[in-house]
Amino acid sequence: MTIWPYATPGIPDDMFERLPGIPMSKCEVRLLLISHLRLRSHSVFWDIGAGTGTIPVEVGLLCPTSKIIAIERDHDVAGLIDQNCLKFGVKNVEIVIGSAPECLDNLVIPDRILIEGGRSVKEILEYCWQRLAIGGRVIATAATLEGLYRISESFSQLHVRNVEIVQSAVNRLETKGNRQIFAAVNPIFILSGDKVS
Amino acid sequence: MTIWPYATPGIPDDMFERLPGIPMSKCEVRLLLISHLRLRSHSVFWDIGAGTGTIPVEVGLLCPTSKIIAIERDHDVAGLIDQNCLKFGVKNVEIVIGSAPECLDNLVIPDRILIEGGRSVKEILEYCWQRLAIGGRVIATAATLEGLYRISESFSQLHVRNVEIVQSAVNRLETKGNRQIFAAVNPIFILSGDKVS
Amino acid sequence: MTIWPYATPGIPDDMFERLPGIPMSKCEVRLLLISHLRLRSHSVFWDIGAGTGTIPVEVGLLCPTSKIIAIERDHDVAGLIDQNCLKFGVKNVEIVIGSAPECLDNLVIPDRILIEGGRSVKEILEYCWQRLAIGGRVIATAATLEGLYRISESFSQLHVRNVEIVQSAVNRLETKGNRQIFAAVNPIFILSGDKVS
Amino acid sequence: MTIWPYATPGIPDDMFERLPGIPMSKCEVRLLLISHLRLRSHSVFWDIGAGTGTIPVEVGLLCPTSKIIAIERDHDVAGLIDQNCLKFGVKNVEIVIGSAPECLDNLVIPDRILIEGGRSVKEILEYCWQRLAIGGRVIATAATLEGLYRISESFSQLHVRNVEIVQSAVNRLETKGNRQIFAAVNPIFILSGDKVS
Repeated sequence: MTIWPYATPGIPDDMFERLPGIPMSKCEVRLLLISHLRLRSHSVFWDIGAGTGTIPVEVGLLCPTSKIIAIERDHDVAGLIDQNCLKFGVKNVEIVIGSAPECLDNLVIPDRILIEGGRSVKEILEYCWQRLAIGGRVIATAATLEGLYRISESFSQLHVRNVEIVQSAVNRLETKGNRQIFAAVNPIFILSGDKVS
Repeated sequence: MTIWPYATPGIPDDMFERLPGIPMSKCEVRLLLISHLRLRSHSVFWDIGAGTGTIPVEVGLLCPTSKIIAIERDHDVAGLIDQNCLKFGVKNVEIVIGSAPECLDNLVIPDRILIEGGRSVKEILEYCWQRLAIGGRVIATAATLEGLYRISESFSQLHVRNVEIVQSAVNRLETKGNRQIFAAVNPIFILSGDKVS
Repeated sequence: MTIWPYATPGIPDDMFERLPGIPMSKCEVRLLLISHLRLRSHSVFWDIGAGTGTIPVEVGLLCPTSKIIAIERDHDVAGLIDQNCLKFGVKNVEIVIGSAPECLDNLVIPDRILIEGGRSVKEILEYCWQRLAIGGRVIATAATLEGLYRISESFSQLHVRNVEIVQSAVNRLETKGNRQIFAAVNPIFILSGDKVS
Repeated sequence: MTIWPYATPGIPDDMFERLPGIPMSKCEVRLLLISHLRLRSHSVFWDIGAGTGTIPVEVGLLCPTSKIIAIERDHDVAGLIDQNCLKFGVKNVEIVIGSAPECLDNLVIPDRILIEGGRSVKEILEYCWQRLAIGGRVIATAATLEGLYRISESFSQLHVRNVEIVQSAVNRLETKGNRQIFAAVNPIFILSGDKVS
């Protein structure tokens, strides 16, 4: 008996184990990320800065024959990813503890890369672009204007193709007492594109 | 060789065949709808007012062992749904041409219902709620304030449980010439809930 | 020497004195409210549920010959309004401490009414509509779905004319350390209309 | 008898004369712009790329003792600004026909500058910054990612202080037949800051 018996993504945020201070993509943002990833059933997917592990879990459930590598520099956070994979019965996630890009050197070549964090997004993007398989896709998220700039500039320098940029913005009706208050989910920019050659 | 070889939802809008004037849920809204549906691998899913057929296609790809019934009153639009299913190689969609709720009488009992349109959303909701299997889910969309009211009121009268309401609002950077203009996707309310008993 | 030497509205939020727990319309919402008020230079304006007093202050500065009556049931909050009027040198605000609608009986007839709060928005709206001068305007805000419903229903029952509904939604780039993070201001619905006869 | 007898800004869009193809800031965006301008009663205000003239009209009404200079390169559009000023009885707007920055050389020194358009926003910003009075403010709008980049970069190079960036995003309920449909106003970024020394 599994805790998420559904064939569709969109696990509610409060079903995940959390650690205080560790960021988590909100459900609605996660859906956009997953859609821009466009995983194949046998993709090799690097999730850099995997945080709470919500993306590895959702992707692991959707693509049980893909190989998912969650990269996370913090030991405790890596443990959290493991915990969430266990909770949802996800078995195709490998966790790598280390700082990107150094820790990526020995990993198997990916055809999908998601960059959710990291000290130097430009450096990580340049490294990842080299390693990404031809025909692969890269996705990066920005919560700040600086991040949006840097990623957009890097995408342009690396000649990423078919670049798409969306800005998520969802309002939820949150129940407080017996009232339903409109609450905004903070906007995130999602940038994605293809490596054609 | 399939046109959408990915294991994740989020087919770009322009990949679907379209008919002028026939509404289509935008990709970002579709993702939210699919996530609120929470289909099981063997769900029976009614999509009422299926329009362009984007939801049957995405759900058909995600849940190939589910039974999807697309209900559409217009003959030409029904043909469009068929065309899109063919285009994406979706084989588990049955198309029913007729006006809801009358045309629903002989259909197999569903555990997931999505109401995307219809002349009288209240009447359709009441009918559907009766037919929905225990443990099932109902989802409805509203683009208007009146729709939001009526659905919310009906949900309350029918004692729909675990009601969630989200309002999608996504900005896309659309390329016009060599400029990337921020364009807003019109907001849609999505209401969903469970039939517990 | 005045603290806000400008002829335009839009005082930054952090310039107002505040009390913990007392709601304050955010600057961007305030601008929308003021614009829907359409005050004349000699309007009589009731602000019901004036809270922190940001609207009386902004309107007092824009329309120094108008008569502004700020209604607030809480003693301490009324003191806060007074404090903010003093801080910004606003002299045309009268503060009435009491519960609406009872406390409104002896007030001079208004041609502009803003309802920002109150236990029973329907009762207050019905009362206010009676008192509102012909040619006057009523504005109400809703942060909840219930509020949106009730106000919209009351507007319809009272035959409010030229009803406009907008939903504010602003993202600010907020500086955290040396990063600028996109933060969403929670959405508020603003409903407004005319009393024609 | 004036057509806008109110002391508050926020003239509805459809009250302005328009020319097909000529851009117009939507009402809600205009309010944000005006608030970031922070005009004094005797400001000198350059509006570069004034388009339909909605800002000169609103500011002219709010600040009748300010000097407003509307700069517009197109002859017909300049005529439109004139027409709108006439319609609303605004008398303190001077219209300059020409291309910025060249046409700005002989203009009186401003303490408020709004850049709504122009072929090269960076060049215009650099020029304007030189001319702007100490203690003055500069505001620029961006509808594109490129614009957002360039303005943000220029602001940084010019050492603009107290930079604020907001992204407007308003949903309106628009009446279509007897339905009220949620429609999104396309988002605009507004960047503003001070010249301290």
